[in-house]
Amino acid sequence: MTDLIWLNGEIKPLSDARLGVEDRGFQFADGVYEVIRIYNGRLFALPEHLDRLERSCGGIMMKMLIDRQRLAREIEQFIAKTGVKEGMIYLQITRGDSPRNHAFPQCPQTTLFYARPLPPTAPAGGQSGVKLYSVPDERWKRCWIKSVALLPNVLAKNTALAAGADEAVFVDDGVATECSSSNLFVVRQGALLTTPVGAKVLPGITRLVVLALAKELGIPATERPISEAEAISADELFITSTTREIGWVASWNGKPVSPGRCGAITLKLHKALQERIRRETQSPQR
Amino acid sequence: MTDLIWLNGEIKPLSDARLGVEDRGFQFADGVYEVIRIYNGRLFALPEHLDRLERSCGGIMMKMLIDRQRLAREIEQFIAKTGVKEGMIYLQITRGDSPRNHAFPQCPQTTLFYARPLPPTAPAGGQSGVKLYSVPDERWKRCWIKSVALLPNVLAKNTALAAGADEAVFVDDGVATECSSSNLFVVRQGALLTTPVGAKVLPGITRLVVLALAKELGIPATERPISEAEAISADELFITSTTREIGWVASWNGKPVSPGRCGAITLKLHKALQERIRRETQSPQR
Repeated sequence: MTDLIWLNGEIKPLSDARLGVEDRGFQFADGVYEVIRIYNGRLFALPEHLDRLERSCGGIMMKMLIDRQRLAREIEQFIAKTGVKEGMIYLQITRGDSPRNHAFPQCPQTTLFYARPLPPTAPAGGQSGVKLYSVPDERWKRCWIKSVALLPNVLAKNTALAAGADEAVFVDDGVATECSSSNLFVVRQGALLTTPVGAKVLPGITRLVVLALAKELGIPATERPISEAEAISADELFITSTTREIGWVASWNGKPVSPGRCGAITLKLHKALQERIRRETQSPQR
Repeated sequence: MTDLIWLNGEIKPLSDARLGVEDRGFQFADGVYEVIRIYNGRLFALPEHLDRLERSCGGIMMKMLIDRQRLAREIEQFIAKTGVKEGMIYLQITRGDSPRNHAFPQCPQTTLFYARPLPPTAPAGGQSGVKLYSVPDERWKRCWIKSVALLPNVLAKNTALAAGADEAVFVDDGVATECSSSNLFVVRQGALLTTPVGAKVLPGITRLVVLALAKELGIPATERPISEAEAISADELFITSTTREIGWVASWNGKPVSPGRCGAITLKLHKALQERIRRETQSPQR
């Protein structure tokens, strides 16, 4: 089946979609994005993603011009049209296509989304462990904005890959802030720890859901800066992201961490997450 | 005359040029760029721009695949074809168009450049003074790379515009580093000062030429961090950029600075710059 894209209100084959070279997403990284998971042909945590999208737009001083309700409806209709059951939506909004100038232009925004299939996630605990690798956190101080200015994340991820790892952990003055495309959690003495959202940490949606699940399950959770040293010596470590759900961490800079398998609390949280996903996406369609 | 673009070896109308939505310039800010000035149909400081382009490519772990000599030749032939006599070349290279993934792709790079006419620069000292406005320097720590991850610069520039100014000065822990699209110089007691190139300062080409001219003219020049306070109280202030050449500064955060006109040393440097430009671009074509 041909991959489709919704581009400024028009649906067409993804391979036919074209942008102008002066789109501000291309010349200025002047845009924001979301990645939303599709399970059983249904969107998971769509309101939370749209909340964040609106906050990101605010963060770049851009009013989101497409109506939120319409956007949600268009995405839902689009997924039905694509037939994608297990996958993701990639959505991006930029300030539009206008002759190059740092000053904000008066032009229509570029809004697009498309679906990509993904293999179904393995059952909780069934994945192989993630290998983390530390890189200095040299990013800007508004990482809470989900902007397309992702060059530092791309460089970090590829530094980790070149070192034989899977994912980069940013370390800012000794603090493990987050990973290049995921949030970091550690478990110490039965309690969950994660660095707070803010200058250096994106408000991950899976992070948010995991914190809510921990509360429901009676697992104490604290948001405070985690030092790299206490992360490495933690009882369990895991990362969260929309596409990965929860990934238990097997090594850090080439040395084993965690118990060498998915830890008990990580497993409990991942099972609860998959149960919530099942409940929200397998129930009869509204 | 129709604006033209050179896109991956093909010349076409700029308005017909289109990029794929998964170009890494659009989704990851995974690219670098240059702006090169055209005077009298000739490029000014092309070798310096190509040197910096190569360093920027290195900074983002990307080998520049187009041969440098060929690129220079193509740009020169392109300018002749466009007929632009006074203007600029905008050039951008990205890691290419490939299904979205942080990992570096195996695909051809996207290389493009196009020309835009500019009004001839006013004679030295003839411009109106620039109004500067301070913003916190929250950018990443590799500003020496001329990447398209310009969102922080765009936000800073527009914050300055909203405050009634022309240009934002980034202030990092009390140090005036550079401006949103220009470098900052001050003159104190007959000597030139500018913050050194590095984490927070782009190696501006006009900055480079001005430092060389100062040497020739016997004006002492020092590269060291300039505090915001000493910049504001300086005898003269000016900014440099490829499109603006030298712009004397009239105010900072709404308060007058400098002598209220283009200062003597600023004027001397701008005259020398325009003389060099004239010499290099009015001489018979090679």
